[in-house]
Amino acid sequence: MKKLNQITFISVFIIPLFSIQLTAQSISRKEIKIPDILGFKTLKCDFHTHTIFSDGDVWPTIRVSEAWKEGLDAIAITDHLEYRPHQGDLVKNFNRSYEIAKEYSKDFGIIVIKGIEITQAMPPGHFNLLFIKDANLLDTLDYNAAIKEGKKQGAFIQWNHPFWKNPVFPRVNSKVEWFKQQKELYENGLLDGIEIVNERDYYPDAFRWCKEKNLTILGNSDIHLPTGYFYDFSKDQHRTMTLVFAENKSEEAIKEALTAHRTVVFFSDTLIGSDRFLREIFNKSITINEAKLEKEKGKLFYIMITNNSDIPYSLIANGIDKDFEFSTDVYLPARSTARLGIKPKKDDFVGMRNLILPYKVKNLITEPFESLKMEISVGIEMK
Amino acid sequence: MKKLNQITFISVFIIPLFSIQLTAQSISRKEIKIPDILGFKTLKCDFHTHTIFSDGDVWPTIRVSEAWKEGLDAIAITDHLEYRPHQGDLVKNFNRSYEIAKEYSKDFGIIVIKGIEITQAMPPGHFNLLFIKDANLLDTLDYNAAIKEGKKQGAFIQWNHPFWKNPVFPRVNSKVEWFKQQKELYENGLLDGIEIVNERDYYPDAFRWCKEKNLTILGNSDIHLPTGYFYDFSKDQHRTMTLVFAENKSEEAIKEALTAHRTVVFFSDTLIGSDRFLREIFNKSITINEAKLEKEKGKLFYIMITNNSDIPYSLIANGIDKDFEFSTDVYLPARSTARLGIKPKKDDFVGMRNLILPYKVKNLITEPFESLKMEISVGIEMK
Amino acid sequence: MKKLNQITFISVFIIPLFSIQLTAQSISRKEIKIPDILGFKTLKCDFHTHTIFSDGDVWPTIRVSEAWKEGLDAIAITDHLEYRPHQGDLVKNFNRSYEIAKEYSKDFGIIVIKGIEITQAMPPGHFNLLFIKDANLLDTLDYNAAIKEGKKQGAFIQWNHPFWKNPVFPRVNSKVEWFKQQKELYENGLLDGIEIVNERDYYPDAFRWCKEKNLTILGNSDIHLPTGYFYDFSKDQHRTMTLVFAENKSEEAIKEALTAHRTVVFFSDTLIGSDRFLREIFNKSITINEAKLEKEKGKLFYIMITNNSDIPYSLIANGIDKDFEFSTDVYLPARSTARLGIKPKKDDFVGMRNLILPYKVKNLITEPFESLKMEISVGIEMK
Amino acid sequence: MKKLNQITFISVFIIPLFSIQLTAQSISRKEIKIPDILGFKTLKCDFHTHTIFSDGDVWPTIRVSEAWKEGLDAIAITDHLEYRPHQGDLVKNFNRSYEIAKEYSKDFGIIVIKGIEITQAMPPGHFNLLFIKDANLLDTLDYNAAIKEGKKQGAFIQWNHPFWKNPVFPRVNSKVEWFKQQKELYENGLLDGIEIVNERDYYPDAFRWCKEKNLTILGNSDIHLPTGYFYDFSKDQHRTMTLVFAENKSEEAIKEALTAHRTVVFFSDTLIGSDRFLREIFNKSITINEAKLEKEKGKLFYIMITNNSDIPYSLIANGIDKDFEFSTDVYLPARSTARLGIKPKKDDFVGMRNLILPYKVKNLITEPFESLKMEISVGIEMK
Repeated sequence: MKKLNQITFISVFIIPLFSIQLTAQSISRKEIKIPDILGFKTLKCDFHTHTIFSDGDVWPTIRVSEAWKEGLDAIAITDHLEYRPHQGDLVKNFNRSYEIAKEYSKDFGIIVIKGIEITQAMPPGHFNLLFIKDANLLDTLDYNAAIKEGKKQGAFIQWNHPFWKNPVFPRVNSKVEWFKQQKELYENGLLDGIEIVNERDYYPDAFRWCKEKNLTILGNSDIHLPTGYFYDFSKDQHRTMTLVFAENKSEEAIKEALTAHRTVVFFSDTLIGSDRFLREIFNKSITINEAKLEKEKGKLFYIMITNNSDIPYSLIANGIDKDFEFSTDVYLPARSTARLGIKPKKDDFVGMRNLILPYKVKNLITEPFESLKMEISVGIEMK
Repeated sequence: MKKLNQITFISVFIIPLFSIQLTAQSISRKEIKIPDILGFKTLKCDFHTHTIFSDGDVWPTIRVSEAWKEGLDAIAITDHLEYRPHQGDLVKNFNRSYEIAKEYSKDFGIIVIKGIEITQAMPPGHFNLLFIKDANLLDTLDYNAAIKEGKKQGAFIQWNHPFWKNPVFPRVNSKVEWFKQQKELYENGLLDGIEIVNERDYYPDAFRWCKEKNLTILGNSDIHLPTGYFYDFSKDQHRTMTLVFAENKSEEAIKEALTAHRTVVFFSDTLIGSDRFLREIFNKSITINEAKLEKEKGKLFYIMITNNSDIPYSLIANGIDKDFEFSTDVYLPARSTARLGIKPKKDDFVGMRNLILPYKVKNLITEPFESLKMEISVGIEMK
Repeated sequence: MKKLNQITFISVFIIPLFSIQLTAQSISRKEIKIPDILGFKTLKCDFHTHTIFSDGDVWPTIRVSEAWKEGLDAIAITDHLEYRPHQGDLVKNFNRSYEIAKEYSKDFGIIVIKGIEITQAMPPGHFNLLFIKDANLLDTLDYNAAIKEGKKQGAFIQWNHPFWKNPVFPRVNSKVEWFKQQKELYENGLLDGIEIVNERDYYPDAFRWCKEKNLTILGNSDIHLPTGYFYDFSKDQHRTMTLVFAENKSEEAIKEALTAHRTVVFFSDTLIGSDRFLREIFNKSITINEAKLEKEKGKLFYIMITNNSDIPYSLIANGIDKDFEFSTDVYLPARSTARLGIKPKKDDFVGMRNLILPYKVKNLITEPFESLKMEISVGIEMK
Repeated sequence: MKKLNQITFISVFIIPLFSIQLTAQSISRKEIKIPDILGFKTLKCDFHTHTIFSDGDVWPTIRVSEAWKEGLDAIAITDHLEYRPHQGDLVKNFNRSYEIAKEYSKDFGIIVIKGIEITQAMPPGHFNLLFIKDANLLDTLDYNAAIKEGKKQGAFIQWNHPFWKNPVFPRVNSKVEWFKQQKELYENGLLDGIEIVNERDYYPDAFRWCKEKNLTILGNSDIHLPTGYFYDFSKDQHRTMTLVFAENKSEEAIKEALTAHRTVVFFSDTLIGSDRFLREIFNKSITINEAKLEKEKGKLFYIMITNNSDIPYSLIANGIDKDFEFSTDVYLPARSTARLGIKPKKDDFVGMRNLILPYKVKNLITEPFESLKMEISVGIEMK
């Protein structure tokens, strides 16, 4: 009989005389610890979700309670405009799934954004219109007209999963040019961002396009099922989301940040985005406990590195040092400390050295096929 | 973009050149191993589920795919008759949630039973009418009329969660008498079974009533949320269900078995039911590897007990032996082997002995406050 | 071939051409987040561990690497003095297990304390002598002589698991008086603290004794097996430990804090200790997001409570309010936010109210059979 | 105070009046379900383990209890001959770790094999001598003499991790020739098998060598740490092991099977071995529920495939059909059922067809770089 919004109230005190009972499956929000950076708040957002009002499987309220439980700050409800297989059972109203979610969100503090997904065969493909005012005014099969109406309402226009069912093969590392439909949208100012990750599919080319054309990168779940049927939260998985660096936690600030390209994509254990955002997140996530080490000659040194965030980091050496060997792989799980070892190549090495250890953070992707480069400095004295 | 009924088809062979990817979250059915007994098939059934057509949170298809993934054989769709908070958004048809689930079930091999939940304040409370033909004919606020119409259609009538919001306190081990409404239903042959477990609440009194009045015991999830938000399948939890001992896997055989009281309730790690069913399930689940042991005097003996089923068993000693001590607690996890130790009380004991070790299986409940008693026989020779 | 102290060094860059490989099982330390309080550092300590030098199962280095991985700050090596079943295979030296652990600890930053466990039948039972200088000087079966020598060396003397194999029954809530042996030790200043939790056994009477006699409370693992065979770290279990509120992270500061009774026991999900320590830990762990709420009359309110620590808290209502109902149970998992609901008893209630909601934190034990009481204040305005 | 071989005995009945307690962490054996094949028993064996008597971290008894808990049938104790860093603390006896494990194994039913690891720099590298009689007779730094003495005692000689610290780069897919030392051993009949998997490192070249030279393939854990610190059993991981197809569960039968090359390597979720063994294991693990399907034209078909074993299988399509599309990926987790979808390429296809669907089982490796090929037959009728 338990509903997510139900709570048990005191009226009498119950004394259980005979109880076979599990610990109550409490409803709580798992906070995801990712540092705020550059004076902005790091908001966790999913700009692509479905409900039973299109081809999703859940009532809109579930999208809100899921978002709350999973530590998100904002979601967009983006039911398909043209594809509504349950329509025969439902009263027709393209705003309805948003309205239900919005009303329910008040008791959870979740920001709900009104959206719609233009759903056309490729080309042009699928587009989310986010921050719209009235979805019913978009009810047309002419995608150009719908997108223009969306823009008139102030929409941020996101090209969804550009390689999904893309007829051009192969899907990655290709020389695919855009179709003319997409070019037109872009040239007419009707394209603001691209999903470079949809669900768990990463499109390196789309990341490249965003860099070349100055578009906003986004990563979203595009969830139709209950999220728990796709992500295993017991194993610390999380849904694909867009990190938005916003002035504050509000719908307006999110829209401003999207327009200003202040986003990073977070999927699986990977972050994708510009060097400056990823470097800052990494630096604010870790602490290195020792910068000065003294040891007897020939000995092994250890640097302790603590990851205070909920993002694991995977470091791999990105160069060599002429006098010292050092750990090739350093894996930093969430909320953990790892050791990085340093050893002189020659046992009789004595004296002081300032070492600059070059690494890549494998799971921080700053270019379509490239990871963040960083260095760890350490002063060593061997006696 | 993944839907539970989608599969990926070959058209070209894809060569991933650059992939950051998790193992695909495959859609599969976790089989629950519980032995068939007494010539019957042990079917796993849930006779109480909700969808968005009443106050549930999911589209009816989800109830089918959940049942499949969780290893169930049959579910009943039992949306509330009188309580339909989403009705304003939906076309009115009390059969509709069943129809959608039934159609979808064909590709999963799940039996879907048409039901409805009569939803009245206590008394009389809530009643599920199972195996009905046309729910729309039950559309009345007169619960007596609705139940009679259900019976006319051949319904099995289940009294739901009889202690939920029951105004009489305390809720267990009480001398609660039934209200006259419930008595009347029973006396008029309009009550066939009682939920002795709803969700994770066990009502020992309801179990007693079923024994006294020869009613069928049932345990159901009464799920409104996606099941995965209430049960943690990654930790091997399972939904509350009714085990039905049926002639075969068919809707008709389930109905016959319910009528013949061939049921056991399975919730948390506990089975509740008559001694003969639980004893048989236990005996067919375990194998004891040694019945004859030889040892030097003063030594410790071990019996190995293997649990081949997916139900863990928890044994606790239920008596003593004058010459031997033996393990007080033996915990038998699913698909595991545990050791039971035996030791002479006196180190100089020699000779042969046939030991009968008395135990209770704590999590097999045969009476409202009593567990299954069993014995382990072992022949011992100490030299 | 992997050893816990091994790391892989770069010499050449390896290009895997064909790899079936799991993510490397990296060696890292899981930090346990418990707030520092009252100007002290909260150190995580285990004052009772065994190695193969008595009847433990692991080489002493493992005790160090386990402590590091599990987020501890300090351990004592306390092999039995009189019980050394592996002695036939080992060179005799009562200091040896400490020496090996101490040497190994340098690369992990773990404090290792030299200890020994006096191991006599009850009475007097078992006693850990902690912070001793030379265990070989204690080599006598006369426990009084051994304890006096320990005290001469500056030992802190801990009575271990006082109810283990205690011949007096029942083991809890009894009127057990101490044996004269224990009284003598106490009266002669040879008893400084008592293990009120050993492994997962809690002795409420021992907690009472410590309060009455002004002794230090301790909780330890008494681990013989590898810790991972007793605690399931994948399920966020942790070993039983003593939280020590110390001036700094050093052996001396730990000893001073033990002497000054600044300890709390942490076992399962439960903390045991004085009201002032537990209240402070709780208050520094949680943040309550709203203290002022406005709503329309008849509506439900929610307060959001965030637990920033790694200790889950379980609140249960400890009283009622004449005008408002409020959540009976609030479960606050680690690093999570939960909602506490408040509802007027009468729908037509209007006006302002300062509510004081009384709760107990079930898993914070301040008296042998009593939990921490606390209140949540909230200002409400209903219009 | 809990030891793995301790059990709690009844003497009085304890009534807990106040208990904060977890479910007892019971000691049990997790059975690994892998089918017996070709008239042989499938035994789970680990022929490479260390204890504190060389550079391992645990007392030999732990190797036995670990093996029991993890569902193994046999282990070899193979401490290094030449490398014994704890030797200063131990009485010298190369047979001792075996003796301790052997004595302890009696209460667990685990077969313990006496072995020793010849530990020389490459070349020649490391060799396990298995089934020896007296390790003390091998006490020489002349590896040739030691191996010959081992062979005299009836040893099976296993070349360990041939690519570990191998000075020749690259380590896989190379044209590495053996060193003369290894060739000599082979030519003199002093080489019986090779570890093609050590820990989690797979050496495809070593697999190729075994095929070319008719040597036995083996995969072992080479465990030094407690196994639980390397494998996460809570996530259903298992140690690397060798499956031995033996006449019966005895040391003699294992030796005979090793000599006759009846082995398969099981590591991570992968099996490596000859086509005939892997095909048989796969076929005896799965059941396909439908071989005949009737559907309306244009419809999607499903075949249900159940995996009854504890080995997950991952199927990938290995060809196409001119008229039908079918699932490219079918993942069959342990003890689960998955669906394989089939769809006519043209919606108007009618008639009968016997389909032969070609797949590879990705995680069954039959050649160094090749997986098991298999086909699924299904008769289809579309009306």
